[in-house]
Amino acid sequence: MTATRIGWIGTGVMGGPMCGHLLAAGHPVTLFTRTRAKAGALVAQGAVWQTSPREVAAQSDVTFVMVGYPREVEDVILGPDGVLAGARPGTIVVDMSTSEPTLAERIHRRAAARGVRTLDAPVSGGDVGAREATLAIMVGGDAGAVAEVTPLLQRLGKTISHMGQAGAGQHAKLCNQILIASTMIGVVECLVYAVRAGLEAGTVIEVVGRGAAASWALNHLGPRIVRGDFAPGFSIQLLVKDMGIALAEAERRRLTLPGLALANRFYQEAMAQGLADQGTQALYRVVAKMNGLLP
Amino acid sequence: MTATRIGWIGTGVMGGPMCGHLLAAGHPVTLFTRTRAKAGALVAQGAVWQTSPREVAAQSDVTFVMVGYPREVEDVILGPDGVLAGARPGTIVVDMSTSEPTLAERIHRRAAARGVRTLDAPVSGGDVGAREATLAIMVGGDAGAVAEVTPLLQRLGKTISHMGQAGAGQHAKLCNQILIASTMIGVVECLVYAVRAGLEAGTVIEVVGRGAAASWALNHLGPRIVRGDFAPGFSIQLLVKDMGIALAEAERRRLTLPGLALANRFYQEAMAQGLADQGTQALYRVVAKMNGLLP
Repeated sequence: MTATRIGWIGTGVMGGPMCGHLLAAGHPVTLFTRTRAKAGALVAQGAVWQTSPREVAAQSDVTFVMVGYPREVEDVILGPDGVLAGARPGTIVVDMSTSEPTLAERIHRRAAARGVRTLDAPVSGGDVGAREATLAIMVGGDAGAVAEVTPLLQRLGKTISHMGQAGAGQHAKLCNQILIASTMIGVVECLVYAVRAGLEAGTVIEVVGRGAAASWALNHLGPRIVRGDFAPGFSIQLLVKDMGIALAEAERRRLTLPGLALANRFYQEAMAQGLADQGTQALYRVVAKMNGLLP
Repeated sequence: MTATRIGWIGTGVMGGPMCGHLLAAGHPVTLFTRTRAKAGALVAQGAVWQTSPREVAAQSDVTFVMVGYPREVEDVILGPDGVLAGARPGTIVVDMSTSEPTLAERIHRRAAARGVRTLDAPVSGGDVGAREATLAIMVGGDAGAVAEVTPLLQRLGKTISHMGQAGAGQHAKLCNQILIASTMIGVVECLVYAVRAGLEAGTVIEVVGRGAAASWALNHLGPRIVRGDFAPGFSIQLLVKDMGIALAEAERRRLTLPGLALANRFYQEAMAQGLADQGTQALYRVVAKMNGLLP
């Protein structure tokens, strides 16, 4: 049996290590990335650079995409030099970026017309999950294609969940981000209240982090806030992107989500204060400043 | 050594089993409760009924209070037939109700003038925690008094945390409720989005409940929402009480907490829809109805 030929588009902080896992598993890999220098380590390990997503797809059985924004997804998959322009019938395209469900549906239709199958398969677990291959992968698309790529996805993540048809993976990821948005508001308001009330914020986290108020955000990001560590993790600008997608999808479906809208306003303010590249926990700085706890 | 004589005021769903643990540990217990019938089981186990909190306190070394609302705390402690009217100098009063930090401070001052020491010691962990003696207890007050009652508190809970001076226990409990308020909004909006997007809500909880979006509320209350189980747990009217206290305290301190204010509006709407006695997860019904997912 010949090893599946892998194409990989986008080798940033997530895509780089993910592509590396497939390379390490013995798959021939061709790749494209906007900034060629970012592919250096993978090329040194045997991956072959191509000049466009189209060239990558033309040489691959399964082409993965892991880029930052929906407009990039659109460009590298649907553009004139994009994946679909090169992909042969029968091959599979897996978009692992967090992107728009409606774009995933559009890509699915365009690909189907060419005999190409597509999956949307965004992930959670962050850069650590990408490096350690412990990502949670939420997949939308046809069951047959999911079954075919599952052995590959198992090289990248710990849990692979088929959520439904095209777009369903993106919808599940948006559910994840909707949760994070309001949970972070709770964490930040709790800590601001604690400080103003004269409590030791670290002690508060220890106490309330064991019971019904516990959350991953409180227990993992709370202590970082307390010691003034606002490095990402997951950056504010990426969460703002995801919240924007979720709000637009909600509006299309006439869904009112006031908690998400509030979180979006808070995080927009964080962007305005120059915190775009900081971790999502830097929302604390906005709310603390608003309440006179920080200059 | 003589066993500490215990007084207990309030034997509802929390106070009943808590009082029972001290009785089972061999302490002589006198008690008062507004509805005498609620004390029947404890009296059968050897507790002695008294006609007022004042009578209870007069016969006790340590008097515990576990009632529902700040106005009841005020009545049973500061009222003409209240605990302080009967408590002897040198004894300790422990209010375990979730109540106002400023009331705790006032009680502390009034008691100190009579040579009585007081602690505010609200809990988290719910009726299950009360029955199984696994509560988290957040204590405000003087360290000496905390040390004296710690062996008693250890009969009631798993963790006893001294948070600071009088009122600090209540402040910590409010931090807990501030977290729960916004976290519940995230959970409910996530599930409403999931349903509208055609995802299986139970599968979404499984997937996103393992990562950065996880919370006790999502993982424990989410599945109840999915199967239409809105029984308390912790009732909406009690959360509304606590949010009201937190908002009033925030206002006194000129703190703006928009997430808490939003949750309060949502839960006020739940009250208006007749959901006061349902569990906090019944917020789902409000948001689902608002979005046309429920009639």
